[in-house]
Amino acid sequence: MPSPIDFYFDFSSPYGYLGAQKVEALAAKHGRTVAWHPILLGAIFKITGGRPLPELPMKGEYAKRDFARSAAFLGIPFKYPTIFPISSVAPSRACYWAMGKDAKKGAELVKALYKAYFVEDRNISDAATVIEIAAGLGFKADEVGAALNDPAVKEKTKAEVDAAIARGVFGSPYIMIDGEPFWGVDRFEQMERWLSTGGW
Amino acid sequence: MPSPIDFYFDFSSPYGYLGAQKVEALAAKHGRTVAWHPILLGAIFKITGGRPLPELPMKGEYAKRDFARSAAFLGIPFKYPTIFPISSVAPSRACYWAMGKDAKKGAELVKALYKAYFVEDRNISDAATVIEIAAGLGFKADEVGAALNDPAVKEKTKAEVDAAIARGVFGSPYIMIDGEPFWGVDRFEQMERWLSTGGW
Repeated sequence: MPSPIDFYFDFSSPYGYLGAQKVEALAAKHGRTVAWHPILLGAIFKITGGRPLPELPMKGEYAKRDFARSAAFLGIPFKYPTIFPISSVAPSRACYWAMGKDAKKGAELVKALYKAYFVEDRNISDAATVIEIAAGLGFKADEVGAALNDPAVKEKTKAEVDAAIARGVFGSPYIMIDGEPFWGVDRFEQMERWLSTGGW
Repeated sequence: MPSPIDFYFDFSSPYGYLGAQKVEALAAKHGRTVAWHPILLGAIFKITGGRPLPELPMKGEYAKRDFARSAAFLGIPFKYPTIFPISSVAPSRACYWAMGKDAKKGAELVKALYKAYFVEDRNISDAATVIEIAAGLGFKADEVGAALNDPAVKEKTKAEVDAAIARGVFGSPYIMIDGEPFWGVDRFEQMERWLSTGGW
């Protein structure tokens, strides 16, 4: 049984959103599954000195254009959110809790939250919005609300981010396949080759 | 007559080197020519706060791996240089001077210098090496040597870098097609679509 594709992403990352629309089909084609790892780029940027793309001089203007063009190129719906970037803490905690209860429905929550933010322009940093979206998938609203403030869920999220950093994750999406790292939705062709050949 | 593809690159940039191996074929396929623009990322990084990829925490280790993997993926010879990064001033000045004398031979010099650095591991920041490579293409060694210290060539190079910055160039390779900007060798497929359709 081949190991799953580890997909690290930040809920505030446009390229993470685009990658999330593609990774399951790639995995299925090669007999793999996807392990979803929400991360908090804010914590990682404290180490790397990184900053959200749109805030960077010169690169910021380009990035906004490239988000939309890359989405169009890949045929994926995309709307630049009114509020950007946002804190990814609430959606990340909700997903770690949900995946712990039910991996399949947890993966659905990942995609529903991303769609809410990057297609429907809903502010998923807001706990009430996260709860509403999770409830739409059948999770109990009061349980989701409790999970967002549960010390064990907070600790799980922090531990996952720390583990990602220890593994070298510095951006979104960041994909590990059999220990080989790939950064960016523009590395899917190289991932495809790796999955087909097991090497470069 | 369609406008040329403006190809901005730094001689110390591995992705610039990879893009330089591909851009002429892409241009020719669409009835275009390539306008080569050596830039000095060091000057641009002073504005953007950027740093050479290999120096960045976490991202640096990944970048070294990705340079080699991307080269292998594209089928392009590549050897990580012993001295990296280097100053791009001498090769850039030589190319602006050479392109001013003979556009076609100037373009050959661009490719010869890139090959010397990223295939043959020669330090092209060194004036003597630049002169030797240019002489190998038929330029007169004493003229090349004089050009590297010619105030007019220095000013031309500076003016080109300033013009690039004014146009929004912040990385390498950075390609402009009919005013549409593309950053990175991983944007060649989007460039291909642009050239085919004139839009996204």
